[in-house]
Amino acid sequence: MAAAAETDKVTVALAQHLAGFRYEDLPAEVVSAARRGVLDWLGCALAGSRHSTLDILVSTMHELDTQSGFNLIGRNDQSGLLSAALINGQMGHVLDYDDTHMAGVVLHASSPVLAALLALAQMSGASGTDLIAAYVAGFEAGVRIGQASPGHHKGGWHLTGTLGTLAAGAACAKLLRLDPQQFVHALGIAGTQAAGMQQNRGTMSKSFHAGKAASNGILAAKLAQRNFDSSDEIIEGSRGFCRIYSETAVPQAVLDELGQRWEIVRNGHKPYACGVVLHPAIDALIGLRKQAGLDPAQVSEVELRVHPLVLSITGVVEPQTGLKSKFSIYHCAAVALRDGAAGVAQYTDQRARDPEIIALRQKVKVHADDTLDNDEAYARVVAGGREHTIHIDHAAGTVANPMSDDAIREKFMANAVPVVGADRAERICAWVAELEKQTDVRALMDLCA
Amino acid sequence: MAAAAETDKVTVALAQHLAGFRYEDLPAEVVSAARRGVLDWLGCALAGSRHSTLDILVSTMHELDTQSGFNLIGRNDQSGLLSAALINGQMGHVLDYDDTHMAGVVLHASSPVLAALLALAQMSGASGTDLIAAYVAGFEAGVRIGQASPGHHKGGWHLTGTLGTLAAGAACAKLLRLDPQQFVHALGIAGTQAAGMQQNRGTMSKSFHAGKAASNGILAAKLAQRNFDSSDEIIEGSRGFCRIYSETAVPQAVLDELGQRWEIVRNGHKPYACGVVLHPAIDALIGLRKQAGLDPAQVSEVELRVHPLVLSITGVVEPQTGLKSKFSIYHCAAVALRDGAAGVAQYTDQRARDPEIIALRQKVKVHADDTLDNDEAYARVVAGGREHTIHIDHAAGTVANPMSDDAIREKFMANAVPVVGADRAERICAWVAELEKQTDVRALMDLCA
Repeated sequence: MAAAAETDKVTVALAQHLAGFRYEDLPAEVVSAARRGVLDWLGCALAGSRHSTLDILVSTMHELDTQSGFNLIGRNDQSGLLSAALINGQMGHVLDYDDTHMAGVVLHASSPVLAALLALAQMSGASGTDLIAAYVAGFEAGVRIGQASPGHHKGGWHLTGTLGTLAAGAACAKLLRLDPQQFVHALGIAGTQAAGMQQNRGTMSKSFHAGKAASNGILAAKLAQRNFDSSDEIIEGSRGFCRIYSETAVPQAVLDELGQRWEIVRNGHKPYACGVVLHPAIDALIGLRKQAGLDPAQVSEVELRVHPLVLSITGVVEPQTGLKSKFSIYHCAAVALRDGAAGVAQYTDQRARDPEIIALRQKVKVHADDTLDNDEAYARVVAGGREHTIHIDHAAGTVANPMSDDAIREKFMANAVPVVGADRAERICAWVAELEKQTDVRALMDLCA
Repeated sequence: MAAAAETDKVTVALAQHLAGFRYEDLPAEVVSAARRGVLDWLGCALAGSRHSTLDILVSTMHELDTQSGFNLIGRNDQSGLLSAALINGQMGHVLDYDDTHMAGVVLHASSPVLAALLALAQMSGASGTDLIAAYVAGFEAGVRIGQASPGHHKGGWHLTGTLGTLAAGAACAKLLRLDPQQFVHALGIAGTQAAGMQQNRGTMSKSFHAGKAASNGILAAKLAQRNFDSSDEIIEGSRGFCRIYSETAVPQAVLDELGQRWEIVRNGHKPYACGVVLHPAIDALIGLRKQAGLDPAQVSEVELRVHPLVLSITGVVEPQTGLKSKFSIYHCAAVALRDGAAGVAQYTDQRARDPEIIALRQKVKVHADDTLDNDEAYARVVAGGREHTIHIDHAAGTVANPMSDDAIREKFMANAVPVVGADRAERICAWVAELEKQTDVRALMDLCA
């Protein structure tokens, strides 16, 4: 495993490392993170499979693609390979419930990466260890290239679309066992398709980015497999990714501690079905509600002090749809107080327009405080004339306060059981629990169909 | 036809205009430009259909897409709709011989737009006037959004990928007769897929951008047709196209003289099969060679004075492949002097490595001069001890010095005859000459198959 610390050839060095490492090189905590990631993501995709956005996407793709052979998760339906990756990727992200990497990069890596790999594995075949190695490679590429492109998110890009495409391309290249030169091209072809604007937040097009990243990643790796070429410097080149998609490119950062630090270990899992920056405030209000036995009907004032990103990303005051409500700190605060929850049921179109929730939203005041970390929040609530306060240091589901394996399993069951039933959900759990011993990933896709 | 001059809602106003105009609104010069554009592009695609890059793309797509029903130009082969658009789009651009819009935006609009439209027309049906209106709409969207995003190209983007996706999305939305709200969404879904880096210049991935733009544009319009949504402000939004893809966004420029100025009229057609910035220098050397009866074997010095873009885009000194030689001013100068030509035959892998051409390339000196226009060049050649000089004011094929209809027809025949034979090529010419009277575009695609 060559770590190639000092080189200008960043793309080549990354490709050599990713093409070269073996499953056996991965520490146990990496394998554990992969297992957690697969189970959590499958639950999100199953829950997302019933969202109305998917109905439109699936019927469009059936018109454009009459093939079958590749399972659509949770839908008892099939399509061609690229369409399956697109559809499964979108369903994984549509509820904004999928995992989030937060080490300098806000990336939902699993939707593009796993949607691509699970579709491609139905064509190429893959064992559990093949899947893990490829999944890990995707995280390495996506997160590291993001770390080398500071300001990328704030600049207006939706990282799950942009970095997600590179992540999916790298993951597929690993699954296909491309040689280092082909791997370079897979990154080059993937990178040159990287897209997705935050302007589309709160619309169907946001989760579409994850699906497109998945299908574009497969296309990149399959082309590279036949020696379709690209620049050898897509990451560091003067008109390459870091310099175009960021104002302060530091391409060398891609190679920091390569082979020693595995980014999948720093992945976060969401207890709530909305933007991750909202989680500390939700933690705070659910905590206060329980702790002080608050009666939502008695609440007269709600004041939140949060990281500035909360207002810039999720400042929607009067969301009109379920998708938009996932980007409203006001809506999140209201459902947290009203329901003591922020799951799938709290972000429907109906709840976005519920008069009781609207009334509560209007009582919420939010202050940005740049001295706070992005997993931190303060809340103050006045109810029945009494004031209550709370401070959340690290939101649940972050690296500093991770969801337990049991909590991830519970979340999976809550997501999966309504779609595939308890028995099938249990079988998926059991299958993923022994991921590294599985011989054919197709069995998992059959369980999820 | 609402021109909506003063509004903040740039995307909505553009969509209303594009959804609303009728074929009958188009001046005769617009229809003529469309006819010229279709014929020239088909020739480029036919010539490109035999390029080795296409063999890789086609075999990969056949593995990923087993459908048929949509013709691949020049290949006696079919695929599914999205793959056909991808493949035909790439073949249109692979030789760098396709038309170029140069009014502030260096965009090869026809490859993404026509590849998308001609594929989609095989599904939805379209008359000649439908095709013209949709083609014109694609130019309007792509070029105008580019004009509103200054510095986009120099920033490192390949406009045929980025703006090409918006152009193809708008064109398909027009062909499908989407209503104004759906048209807004088509722009939103197309824009959020916009990608392509100049880092990939000289590789197979460059023309891939044109193909991806075509297939992404179809996908955007077909999703929008089923009310898949997006932001209503993809052009002007604070995290929208102009602001992300440019450092000096002027979204309002999209609406300048809307309905009065039609951008397709300012399209340029290439006499040479290489980057358009190279054309003034090639004109100069072919002109000198003819005028002075130069013997290439006697040439001892070649000096060029050109616009600075020539060196920054096409400064490759020792190109090793045909694709890379299209971005080498040194190679272009050498073949212009040696062959008196710069057509498809001058940019093969073999010519890139030809010792005679390499020796000539090494005699070429290039000076950037920012007082020159980008369609202007000076050349000085010493041959057999005598010095010759020439000045080109406006390169052939530009708006100020356009190719004649006859020249476009000749170029088409040179491109098409080797692929489909003289008889078929004549029939395509005759069909396109009466484009506005044709009832079904499928007939054209059958002629080109």
